[in-house]
Amino acid sequence: MNAPKKVVLAYSGGLDTSIILKWLQTEYGCEVVTFTADLGQGEELEPARQKAELLGIKPENIYIEDVREEFVRDFVNPMFRANALYEGEYLLGTSIARPLISKRLVEIAEETGADAIAHGATGKGNDQVRFELAAYALNPDIRVIAPWREWDLTSRTKLIEFAEAHQIPIAKNKRGEAPFSVDANLLHTSSEGRVLENPAEEAPDYVLQRITRPEDAPDAPEMVEITFEKGDAVAIDGERLSPATILTRLNELGGRHGIGILDLVENRFVGMKSRGIYETPGGTILLAAHRGIEQITLDSGSGHLKDSLMPRYAELIYNGFWFSPEREMLQAAIDKSQDRVDGTVRLKLYKGSVRTVARWSDNSLYSEAHVTFEDDAGAYDQKDAAGFIRLNALRLKLLATRARRTKG
Amino acid sequence: MNAPKKVVLAYSGGLDTSIILKWLQTEYGCEVVTFTADLGQGEELEPARQKAELLGIKPENIYIEDVREEFVRDFVNPMFRANALYEGEYLLGTSIARPLISKRLVEIAEETGADAIAHGATGKGNDQVRFELAAYALNPDIRVIAPWREWDLTSRTKLIEFAEAHQIPIAKNKRGEAPFSVDANLLHTSSEGRVLENPAEEAPDYVLQRITRPEDAPDAPEMVEITFEKGDAVAIDGERLSPATILTRLNELGGRHGIGILDLVENRFVGMKSRGIYETPGGTILLAAHRGIEQITLDSGSGHLKDSLMPRYAELIYNGFWFSPEREMLQAAIDKSQDRVDGTVRLKLYKGSVRTVARWSDNSLYSEAHVTFEDDAGAYDQKDAAGFIRLNALRLKLLATRARRTKG
Amino acid sequence: MNAPKKVVLAYSGGLDTSIILKWLQTEYGCEVVTFTADLGQGEELEPARQKAELLGIKPENIYIEDVREEFVRDFVNPMFRANALYEGEYLLGTSIARPLISKRLVEIAEETGADAIAHGATGKGNDQVRFELAAYALNPDIRVIAPWREWDLTSRTKLIEFAEAHQIPIAKNKRGEAPFSVDANLLHTSSEGRVLENPAEEAPDYVLQRITRPEDAPDAPEMVEITFEKGDAVAIDGERLSPATILTRLNELGGRHGIGILDLVENRFVGMKSRGIYETPGGTILLAAHRGIEQITLDSGSGHLKDSLMPRYAELIYNGFWFSPEREMLQAAIDKSQDRVDGTVRLKLYKGSVRTVARWSDNSLYSEAHVTFEDDAGAYDQKDAAGFIRLNALRLKLLATRARRTKG
Amino acid sequence: MNAPKKVVLAYSGGLDTSIILKWLQTEYGCEVVTFTADLGQGEELEPARQKAELLGIKPENIYIEDVREEFVRDFVNPMFRANALYEGEYLLGTSIARPLISKRLVEIAEETGADAIAHGATGKGNDQVRFELAAYALNPDIRVIAPWREWDLTSRTKLIEFAEAHQIPIAKNKRGEAPFSVDANLLHTSSEGRVLENPAEEAPDYVLQRITRPEDAPDAPEMVEITFEKGDAVAIDGERLSPATILTRLNELGGRHGIGILDLVENRFVGMKSRGIYETPGGTILLAAHRGIEQITLDSGSGHLKDSLMPRYAELIYNGFWFSPEREMLQAAIDKSQDRVDGTVRLKLYKGSVRTVARWSDNSLYSEAHVTFEDDAGAYDQKDAAGFIRLNALRLKLLATRARRTKG
Repeated sequence: MNAPKKVVLAYSGGLDTSIILKWLQTEYGCEVVTFTADLGQGEELEPARQKAELLGIKPENIYIEDVREEFVRDFVNPMFRANALYEGEYLLGTSIARPLISKRLVEIAEETGADAIAHGATGKGNDQVRFELAAYALNPDIRVIAPWREWDLTSRTKLIEFAEAHQIPIAKNKRGEAPFSVDANLLHTSSEGRVLENPAEEAPDYVLQRITRPEDAPDAPEMVEITFEKGDAVAIDGERLSPATILTRLNELGGRHGIGILDLVENRFVGMKSRGIYETPGGTILLAAHRGIEQITLDSGSGHLKDSLMPRYAELIYNGFWFSPEREMLQAAIDKSQDRVDGTVRLKLYKGSVRTVARWSDNSLYSEAHVTFEDDAGAYDQKDAAGFIRLNALRLKLLATRARRTKG
Repeated sequence: MNAPKKVVLAYSGGLDTSIILKWLQTEYGCEVVTFTADLGQGEELEPARQKAELLGIKPENIYIEDVREEFVRDFVNPMFRANALYEGEYLLGTSIARPLISKRLVEIAEETGADAIAHGATGKGNDQVRFELAAYALNPDIRVIAPWREWDLTSRTKLIEFAEAHQIPIAKNKRGEAPFSVDANLLHTSSEGRVLENPAEEAPDYVLQRITRPEDAPDAPEMVEITFEKGDAVAIDGERLSPATILTRLNELGGRHGIGILDLVENRFVGMKSRGIYETPGGTILLAAHRGIEQITLDSGSGHLKDSLMPRYAELIYNGFWFSPEREMLQAAIDKSQDRVDGTVRLKLYKGSVRTVARWSDNSLYSEAHVTFEDDAGAYDQKDAAGFIRLNALRLKLLATRARRTKG
Repeated sequence: MNAPKKVVLAYSGGLDTSIILKWLQTEYGCEVVTFTADLGQGEELEPARQKAELLGIKPENIYIEDVREEFVRDFVNPMFRANALYEGEYLLGTSIARPLISKRLVEIAEETGADAIAHGATGKGNDQVRFELAAYALNPDIRVIAPWREWDLTSRTKLIEFAEAHQIPIAKNKRGEAPFSVDANLLHTSSEGRVLENPAEEAPDYVLQRITRPEDAPDAPEMVEITFEKGDAVAIDGERLSPATILTRLNELGGRHGIGILDLVENRFVGMKSRGIYETPGGTILLAAHRGIEQITLDSGSGHLKDSLMPRYAELIYNGFWFSPEREMLQAAIDKSQDRVDGTVRLKLYKGSVRTVARWSDNSLYSEAHVTFEDDAGAYDQKDAAGFIRLNALRLKLLATRARRTKG
Repeated sequence: MNAPKKVVLAYSGGLDTSIILKWLQTEYGCEVVTFTADLGQGEELEPARQKAELLGIKPENIYIEDVREEFVRDFVNPMFRANALYEGEYLLGTSIARPLISKRLVEIAEETGADAIAHGATGKGNDQVRFELAAYALNPDIRVIAPWREWDLTSRTKLIEFAEAHQIPIAKNKRGEAPFSVDANLLHTSSEGRVLENPAEEAPDYVLQRITRPEDAPDAPEMVEITFEKGDAVAIDGERLSPATILTRLNELGGRHGIGILDLVENRFVGMKSRGIYETPGGTILLAAHRGIEQITLDSGSGHLKDSLMPRYAELIYNGFWFSPEREMLQAAIDKSQDRVDGTVRLKLYKGSVRTVARWSDNSLYSEAHVTFEDDAGAYDQKDAAGFIRLNALRLKLLATRARRTKG
């Protein structure tokens, strides 16, 4: 295959992607365009610009963007409408960010006439799959370069040597191995590798990046009210806020109260198990709240169908199939269910746990008239239940009759 | 329909089922057999015997049984193998007890030559359905009497009058309405009705029956280790215990640490929504632990299939179809997956939350050799990922090519 | 319950619904509005008008409508987008017509100020459920009267006596029992009951209403080409036709060639099994054709998701939940998949069988470049398959390694 | 990677696998063991022995086995219990044979001390995946050699040159390209490639290998009765036969009557679409018959659950995951449902179509007493339906009430 001429690189400004940047230049002699996104990972972006310039990237080839609102509005919110949990527990914080990055990489490639994109994900993980499936789904002719699968810089020593040989600045604490690897965005922070690799050993407290240990959280519970429209959170405690602002606020609340820590061994799409510590403070509150508002605004038909579709939906996102027809089909079904998911949920936050304690909505389907232990004024005729049960039982009776007839 | 001659009544010894007992005698002139089960609801059973005798039941017609071990072994444990949650949150504590009671009612009816059974569930709830579907599935010819759907004792006043007219002793605190209605067994306690009927109002603290408020729980976390064999908990902190003993111990632990409180608005099978406060201290710990051990002992194929079957399985139990061919089919699939679900999980309990922090197993599928950030000695060839991704992407590329070809 | 004042009756003009008409008048003293729809059942509608007038219905209370286009456009076509088959075989011909009738009954009730609707379905079948669920979903306050569940005209003799007593004309061949019962519309004809009640006995040939026996069909095969747009058939042999015209033509073709006969024992929603002979000539061709065009225009992600959702979708329609949120959610997903389902399918019709023999589309995803046995000019790198297989195999290898490690 | 020392080759005796045999010897200098299985493909096996000897294989390294009974008993029959259809139409004839071959290859490798197996599937198809996933699932350490993905014999000319250079006999008709490629076993024959590559062109009649054209089939229908026990066919027309004999007989019947021809464009696991002509005469009859007996012996709960699981089950088999925990889980559920699937089905075979016309069973759940149009003697109380419908409608009414309340 010919060398690429121009490559758009997902660039964080850190040591590893700086090495990739330089490697692309030296390996292929190609022009490099850098894309650095603010996804809410909590790092300054301007240093990335300076570092890119230092590594010889032309100013017009440096793309730095704040995509937090798009991230929450077009990716996080649609996903939360589904109550998505991978393997019953994981809120998909890393998974949901990758397609957005790929989308911008492909778009910038088309704008700048680049013939390839590149990312810094390794060949063992899910992120390579997510980056690449999304890219190919958006541009079937794009070329994707994954240096970690190609180069021979297979040890920390070799990486450092390469950096030194190419005048890439190395922060002091980057010379040795980090004790674990971190990925962060507005929805979550994940930590994995090295000191976390043995799932039989507890993760040390210092792994936590953004959530207070529950033991150190305030001794007093705090209440919060979240308002939804069509399934999306639109206000906190009555204050209408933008999507990213809402998630930011919920992160502060959850982080303060020790909410959203998960220690998980999960199945990667590439076939192995890995162990991660996930911190999803705002997302954990949001999931509880969304379930809470659906409790009164969805009927059982919608709710049970959603629950049965959810595992597949979550798996698609985890595996990198955000931009796929089947994810879009499921999204169409899920979005259809959210037309009336409006209202407010009150939750109690306390030392690591979040609990719905009240919910109300103009669209509520809860009928006190029907359910009441008091006189229901004829809203419900208890005798109807007899027929309901008898017809539901009919096939079971026929089965039981057969069992008695044919045994012995 | 002719009057029944002999009826087996699910009898708690309380006022309501005592009224039913007397009503059956007076309405039908039939002989009554009482069945009182210790399901771990935490009440003495002997008073039920005395009360039954007082109401004229012959000693040989009084059945009092401790079914706690059977309950956990044959009902709770199989259900927990599935990680069953109804509507994403409810651990099915009431639902799973009903089929066991029906099973014994039907068996006692066959032993005593009774032609009917009777229960004290109302015509608005799920329990009537669960009792009756189970009964019909076990004996297609049994007659089920549900006095609440039949009689005209439709107010508290009328019930009390009936009790007084028939010399049924009335405890002082039973003259008025209880502020809410309670059901309990070894797995959970549920509270609903009256003061809880408005889902927009927080439940008062005094509703809690067996779980300490998280705010009042110990300030120090507590660790517990649960050992599993074939998906069932068999030991706590290394001590091998019977099924019911394990659940009892976990209830103590969870109750002390404020774990397992749920405020839920759910969809009843009969079509209305209801709001309940559920306390499932041990079950909440058990679910977390079971998920924890499955993380390392199930591969993704088994785990994802289980997750996709779970909502239907939970719905079947909730709706009363425990004794149905489809529940048994799903159970066969689930049980097949549990052959190697052995090992131990360590969990941290603290002020309302439970979290897996470590897990290990001789059957672990976790391969540090594959996942490690260090040199993996050839366990995994990162180049394989390129082909894996390209073939997974092929259909997406063909879709994208079509989209570009046919648009505009 | 008070007597209804004005009732809209689904009226065929036949003896049974004429008896119902008169019974409503005499039982309730209410005004009756008749609704007679041309759903393509192949009967003249004007005699229904005359008969209604004869029975005293005011001209302004007689509604006679040709709803064939609406039936195919808004009910049959959406359903065929899903390739819906109940219990693997039944094309849902009766099921899909009921919600349309209920919709018009409810609308006419609202137009005419009627407080109830009535239908002629018995208490044993599915149609009562379909009529009533649809009606309640559209108007929660409507009252539905199902005379067959209420009256005491429980034998043919009593019905005839009632008719005679009320001067209802009785056609000669209606005095005795029909040998079987027939329902028909543009999509199908179903026959059931009496001579068909024993599923171990073959149905007599005279049961067939609209399909030629395959043995009597032409000796020469006939080809037909059906063109689709967004999943709906829009043309036959290149001629653009209205939805109902297309189905009518396909019925002629299928009927002539003996296509679409089904002898089925099915599970009714009310719990019992029934045996029916279904004739769905055009629908059988349409299903084959739709599958044929999807083969080249849907990718595997969409197609497999559709296949997995279909059984639930079909069950919902069969059980009467057309107007339910979950059917609409599934429809949203299905419709989303049909955006590019355009193109033409050629089918061969011959003595009872229909077979796709060719299909083509501007939207085809079939890539001869990829699949060819010849040199593919680099479209596909066979070496990619090695990595694809190795990563798909990884978890299986880990399982096998465990099995070897832990046995013995 | 080191050269393998001893390789077990799936050997047909044909030109292509003979070239592979020789290539393995010359490329790796390894010892070759040949495995030739009679799966009912209709070819003599002894010529394969002679040819292997001619190519220098030691007699003790030549394995020739008749595995037809194992094939039907342990692979085909379990699959038919599920009514498996891939993409709605394909009976999985090729897919189901591959795991059996892999199983024997692995077993023979273990018996003979071979360190690798080899197969003749190309890098574009599904069969490579099926062979290899099965092999790795049974022996995680086995090495699999797929010459078509490795060698440079990428054209017919090069293959013939290699054969000539190595004294491999070449049948006259093998010098040129075959007009299409054929795979056959007892369940089916598939044809694909070359003249079939354009899905818009009809397949020529000469493609058919084992089924008479419907137009040439007998003018008289033929009836056949198939008896089932626990879901498996055990007798034809009352004659008890072995599994493979039953399938052989059904193949004769179906082939004679033109039954089981399918022209399909399908989605391969590796991402592309392919077009095939499948001939599955006996299997097509068997599927219809199995559905027929399930109609009266399964209740709706079992049947509908099976239908909803089937697409996933079929996909697993198609994709090569026969030896996977999730296929075994689904099999456990399916097999559980078949306990009472006993009885006999009568089918009518005629010029390309098969139709169930009668079915009976001691285990029948069909209750004429319930379904009858005649007086049912109280088996069913039509009034029960009113309550059944009202409670099923309750949520729909609440939804409709909300819709009316909140609109406008």
